[in-house]
Amino acid sequence: MSEKIAFMGLGTLGTPIAANLIQDGHEVTVWNRTPGKAQSLLDQGASEADSPKDAVTPGGVIVSVLANDAAVKETVTKEVLEKLGEGGLHISMSTIAPATARRLAEMHEWYGVGYVAAPIFARPEAVTARIGNLCVSGEAKAKERARPIIAPSVKGFFDFGDEVGAANVVKLAGNFMIAASMEMMAEAFTMGEKSGVPRQAMYDMFTQTLFATPIFQGYGRMIHQNNYETVGFKLPLGLKDLNLVLEASSDVQVPMPLANLLRDRLLSAIAKGRDNLDWTALAQGVSDDAGL
Amino acid sequence: MSEKIAFMGLGTLGTPIAANLIQDGHEVTVWNRTPGKAQSLLDQGASEADSPKDAVTPGGVIVSVLANDAAVKETVTKEVLEKLGEGGLHISMSTIAPATARRLAEMHEWYGVGYVAAPIFARPEAVTARIGNLCVSGEAKAKERARPIIAPSVKGFFDFGDEVGAANVVKLAGNFMIAASMEMMAEAFTMGEKSGVPRQAMYDMFTQTLFATPIFQGYGRMIHQNNYETVGFKLPLGLKDLNLVLEASSDVQVPMPLANLLRDRLLSAIAKGRDNLDWTALAQGVSDDAGL
Repeated sequence: MSEKIAFMGLGTLGTPIAANLIQDGHEVTVWNRTPGKAQSLLDQGASEADSPKDAVTPGGVIVSVLANDAAVKETVTKEVLEKLGEGGLHISMSTIAPATARRLAEMHEWYGVGYVAAPIFARPEAVTARIGNLCVSGEAKAKERARPIIAPSVKGFFDFGDEVGAANVVKLAGNFMIAASMEMMAEAFTMGEKSGVPRQAMYDMFTQTLFATPIFQGYGRMIHQNNYETVGFKLPLGLKDLNLVLEASSDVQVPMPLANLLRDRLLSAIAKGRDNLDWTALAQGVSDDAGL
Repeated sequence: MSEKIAFMGLGTLGTPIAANLIQDGHEVTVWNRTPGKAQSLLDQGASEADSPKDAVTPGGVIVSVLANDAAVKETVTKEVLEKLGEGGLHISMSTIAPATARRLAEMHEWYGVGYVAAPIFARPEAVTARIGNLCVSGEAKAKERARPIIAPSVKGFFDFGDEVGAANVVKLAGNFMIAASMEMMAEAFTMGEKSGVPRQAMYDMFTQTLFATPIFQGYGRMIHQNNYETVGFKLPLGLKDLNLVLEASSDVQVPMPLANLLRDRLLSAIAKGRDNLDWTALAQGVSDDAGL
């Protein structure tokens, strides 16, 4: 069924998701804080609104892909929710704190608006190829309406139940595990390098055998080359996510020493002026520490 | 070409390797420190010797799969090397320090014996299925003779060059990366568990998507079940390997904070009386710390 969708957030991930929704026959009105990002989507048939409130149709759907917790709260305001109103739905795809998702869901309920947490695991090109993975959580009725809108954009669709923060917990856990994979490769490759085993030789073996997955193959290539200039996900966004991991784990009293280590790597990378690099540049810290 | 092989070390890994060598038509004489482990191999056509020296044929081959550095030094003694003599070859498959491998290779050279470092990545059943991975390093001529003996036992054969310690560095790096995979899953699953996301739900998603490899699938199953009773690799052997990682990285001045964390997890597991469990039980420490 075709839906009237207000799409908020035209970043590197948001833009290809919006393009998929247009392709799938939905009526898409886009809004972005920084103007000038909508042209390719307008060419594909989207409309553009001057404000989040203007983008919304009563009883329709919001899909948001925003940078952080604050951006979601500033964009999907009470005025926006009031206009969306009874029967409306917000599919919230941003990587935010589980606690924020819970507070947002409560606020939405007050206006009769459904809230689905739907963070996605995918690089932009994987969104276009519709091969990413989506985690959802929230009230069953809201998920039922959300599914035909977002499921066609991914390969894997994983439902983590009614508790609305659950999908955000899983998304944070996943980003933590990706960053941990970087750290382990950086330590292993650097031990190899200083012992006379070329970084690439170790990379080649492990990514063909024990760790033959795109996560290790893709990030590992950047790490063995020590080249972090191709930015898929900016380093400060990685720091934001690791801070969210530590916030969420503090809330439930789970010490995560590896997450702490990763947060400090990212913080140190920013202190060293690496904020324009890909977040994989956390690996450079291992080389720094080894005097390379 | 059929070789006269003295096979030393009939542990869980050594026994299936020896069985492959017999199957492949080599003349195999086995020796093990603890007696009574050879029967299945004798039934398959092996002979048994009373001492390492008795097992050896001049000019022949030693294949050793022993528990640690000390066991290799105590087993392949000067007397053994003297008997093996000029033209002999030692294929050393134990996980030992790179520095030990270098010292052993020098000592072997003195007796005219070639030395090949050939640690293997494989659980016992993967040796039998011949699907493991082997890393080799050492002098070219020695490797040339070693290859047709050991390559048929594995799927992947990776040559790390002439520097004899190189393969041991790679093996240690690999075991470090496996242990790091355990820690990252333990932290992620435990954060999930205390946030209301069942350990298995997170396991199912990640091992079908971002981390769809046997390392994460196999060890992850034990970690999400919190059941470490099925011992593939005993916890004290894991501690030995992490200590070797830290020793090797100290030698070349590479700080490895994640390796330190893993070593302490294993040490703590032993302090808590878990030395009879699989090394995956390091994951239990994360649950302990979270008050579970």
